[in-house]
Amino acid sequence: MNNPAKQQNARTAITPTREQDFPEWYQEVVKAADMAENSPVRGSMIIKPYGWALWENMTRIFDAWLKDYGIQNAYFPLLIPVSFLAKEAEHVEGFAKECAVVTHHRLEKGPKGGLVPAEAAKLEEPYVIRPTSETIIGDAMARWVQSYRDLPLKLNQWNNVMRWEMRTRLFLRTSEFLWHEGHCAFETAKEAEADTLHVMGLYKRFFEEYLAFTGFVGPKTAEERFPGAINTIGFEAMMQDGKALQAATTHDLGQNFSKSIGIKFQGRDGKEAFAHTTSWAYSTRTLGGMIMMHGDDDGMIMPPRVAPVQVIVLPVIKDEAGAGALMDFCNKIADDLKKAGVAVKVDSRDMRTPDKMWEAVKKGIPVRVEVGQREMEANSVTFVRRDLGKDSKTTCTVPEFLAKVSGVLDDVHNGLLSRNRKFRDDNTFDGKGVSDIKDFFAAGKMGFVRVPVETLKDEALEKVKDEFKLSTRCMPFEDEGKKVLIAKSY
Amino acid sequence: MNNPAKQQNARTAITPTREQDFPEWYQEVVKAADMAENSPVRGSMIIKPYGWALWENMTRIFDAWLKDYGIQNAYFPLLIPVSFLAKEAEHVEGFAKECAVVTHHRLEKGPKGGLVPAEAAKLEEPYVIRPTSETIIGDAMARWVQSYRDLPLKLNQWNNVMRWEMRTRLFLRTSEFLWHEGHCAFETAKEAEADTLHVMGLYKRFFEEYLAFTGFVGPKTAEERFPGAINTIGFEAMMQDGKALQAATTHDLGQNFSKSIGIKFQGRDGKEAFAHTTSWAYSTRTLGGMIMMHGDDDGMIMPPRVAPVQVIVLPVIKDEAGAGALMDFCNKIADDLKKAGVAVKVDSRDMRTPDKMWEAVKKGIPVRVEVGQREMEANSVTFVRRDLGKDSKTTCTVPEFLAKVSGVLDDVHNGLLSRNRKFRDDNTFDGKGVSDIKDFFAAGKMGFVRVPVETLKDEALEKVKDEFKLSTRCMPFEDEGKKVLIAKSY
Repeated sequence: MNNPAKQQNARTAITPTREQDFPEWYQEVVKAADMAENSPVRGSMIIKPYGWALWENMTRIFDAWLKDYGIQNAYFPLLIPVSFLAKEAEHVEGFAKECAVVTHHRLEKGPKGGLVPAEAAKLEEPYVIRPTSETIIGDAMARWVQSYRDLPLKLNQWNNVMRWEMRTRLFLRTSEFLWHEGHCAFETAKEAEADTLHVMGLYKRFFEEYLAFTGFVGPKTAEERFPGAINTIGFEAMMQDGKALQAATTHDLGQNFSKSIGIKFQGRDGKEAFAHTTSWAYSTRTLGGMIMMHGDDDGMIMPPRVAPVQVIVLPVIKDEAGAGALMDFCNKIADDLKKAGVAVKVDSRDMRTPDKMWEAVKKGIPVRVEVGQREMEANSVTFVRRDLGKDSKTTCTVPEFLAKVSGVLDDVHNGLLSRNRKFRDDNTFDGKGVSDIKDFFAAGKMGFVRVPVETLKDEALEKVKDEFKLSTRCMPFEDEGKKVLIAKSY
Repeated sequence: MNNPAKQQNARTAITPTREQDFPEWYQEVVKAADMAENSPVRGSMIIKPYGWALWENMTRIFDAWLKDYGIQNAYFPLLIPVSFLAKEAEHVEGFAKECAVVTHHRLEKGPKGGLVPAEAAKLEEPYVIRPTSETIIGDAMARWVQSYRDLPLKLNQWNNVMRWEMRTRLFLRTSEFLWHEGHCAFETAKEAEADTLHVMGLYKRFFEEYLAFTGFVGPKTAEERFPGAINTIGFEAMMQDGKALQAATTHDLGQNFSKSIGIKFQGRDGKEAFAHTTSWAYSTRTLGGMIMMHGDDDGMIMPPRVAPVQVIVLPVIKDEAGAGALMDFCNKIADDLKKAGVAVKVDSRDMRTPDKMWEAVKKGIPVRVEVGQREMEANSVTFVRRDLGKDSKTTCTVPEFLAKVSGVLDDVHNGLLSRNRKFRDDNTFDGKGVSDIKDFFAAGKMGFVRVPVETLKDEALEKVKDEFKLSTRCMPFEDEGKKVLIAKSY
């Protein structure tokens, strides 16, 4: 039982495997990694400490990037008057459908006991819990923007939003989720467009450089745009089942919202003009995407640069007599790692070593260090990379380990990123048009099909999309607008 | 107009003054400092970037302290089933009254146009937007805690909550507000009590050492306890109008919630036992308290250690020819300050210098640096402390300023803290009983009246409290439980 490599060969830590049942594998990975669970509130999840710590790392780093770009954080109300939602014609169609509606402001004892909404406390105008904040932030912008001198106005908030969902899955589709939402107003159309490109560039760089998370980036087709936008750019990631997950979007709202809400200003020419606005976001959904992109049949693999725990140290205690000295040795290693800026944890719990080892595997901790009597006597450690498993098992002296650990974490990151890029490329297939799309999915294959954009004009496309539940994902920048990706999606 | 000292003598930046109309002065300070504003959502505020930056500093620092104490952050649902709220008898009385109630999950077009809640989408059981999360977190704890090995369980979340308010004031009383809420479960009553004392100790230290915010700390009287708690410890701060503001509380919930929700565990003796739980919080309300404790008739005074901008540099441009060199000189000073870890901003906007100066005053930036041609030629700066105004005007060389700036910021902090402590002590009056309380408030005086705790048993107390709208604030630890503070409060 002390040889993880042997055990890894014998069975997988997660049942079922990805091959056997991908959706069920996903749920089991989330559970085994202790990242989140369903709550008694329909469609709302509890993000557990380990999942939250990952989200905190993702927010802290990216928030600093947004500030470097000149974004100011602020906070706008959770509730939105229903009349606000109705201001932008497409927006209302896109969001009014499934919203949590607040109709009363008090409970009272009901006739059958229990508590019921108090009739006397019925609101004149109901509110919805924000599904997104374009309208309420736009309303503030309309007050704050008077002159071109007030522009650009670049705002962001990290908050919770709610879109009522009937079929929910942890992180991927929940009624309440957390995100950041940026909202900017500019003098010119050019600046607004540049903003959506710049922020998508930040997303791409952050996803790749910190999350080892890869995807295709490009404009969405008209039908897939954010309701009310003149252009939406998407980051489309491929999950290990070949489905697409939209992991971030930036929207050029043109003057649609500024005209309906009244964000106008006196321009440099003295004339009144409407601002050009944008909005953009990524959410806790990306956590689900990271599980489905990085995880394997033994559970989660945390990308090292945002991992809540980068290195775990397991003291392998054989006899109680030597336990104290071994713990001291492990703690000393951990202290030195901390000084080097590594997020390290010593698992000193009173549990069997194999159980601790498997927990570390399932939680996806990038580097696992095992220290027994023999290692201590040689002032050495044995370490294993989570992404490579037994093949990476290495023994070296403690000074050597301290010198190389940040390089090892980089190697894990780079390994994940290149593996994911290869998977994406290996599962993206070129086609000439609708019939190639149909043949591909009719054969039970999964992945992205890349076809010429002219395919969008083919009337036969809709039928094939309906038949196989496909959607257009984006028109990748790398294909210079000449191709469009078609896939099943989350 | 270029002499701020003279102008400060001539008039105040805020109208009315504190003396003239304290509540109105408060609203004007919030507005002039550009920290927050009312929103179109009844009772909900918009926290503007400058106010939010202060809150971010307050959360970042304190969050690290909580982590040092072993707290794990997590995230629990925004919505709470009404039946949950009803689980703890006192709790339901305390919180069910004024809640935002979610009754529908969809809108549809109404008969008269517009959008109305869809009857077909009425929820079987309504939800409330969390007024606090004891019940929903307790429900999770009941699942997570099985054995004494699972304890202590120490959780926290930074989030938004909602308690419907009819009369609202920015920061002080808003329907939606932001806070952190800690929720812990322990094996023993002793540990739970120690937790409430420890965390209150953290609050006190944080408030004093970072916010220059002082107050009295001690248990609340039974009637002022959190609904469902066996003990509540409060941090009671005195505002400049002599009213009390409860700025933080820690609650020992005993086994009330664990018994009603079912947080039980197998103890060390093998027997089943109920956990002892606690909860504690401070909120954006403290921002309002800081304004009312630190501000003066020229506006906000930001406590330096959490100030979004600690030092502002104003280039005093007399002729356009020298403007470029002067800006370079100012930017160089700012770069050197940044390297020293100072939050600095150069106000390079195309505006009149006196307007910039007054804006810096009203925003309460702790140190204002003015640099004109003369200063540049002598490689010097002139700086003014916000808390002392003209009397603190000092000219020194740039190297001298760089060497002393962190000391100056400490001086501002210490100056505010000792001034606030003195104000608190000068306005706390000892009395012997109910008649002294009555005489004090009947004479139109304001402040805290400190009387022997035996006064609480005097039946005449209720009448006096009602007459003058007084409440018991806390029984300060420093008086060893022998005294109780009576005051008007926010």
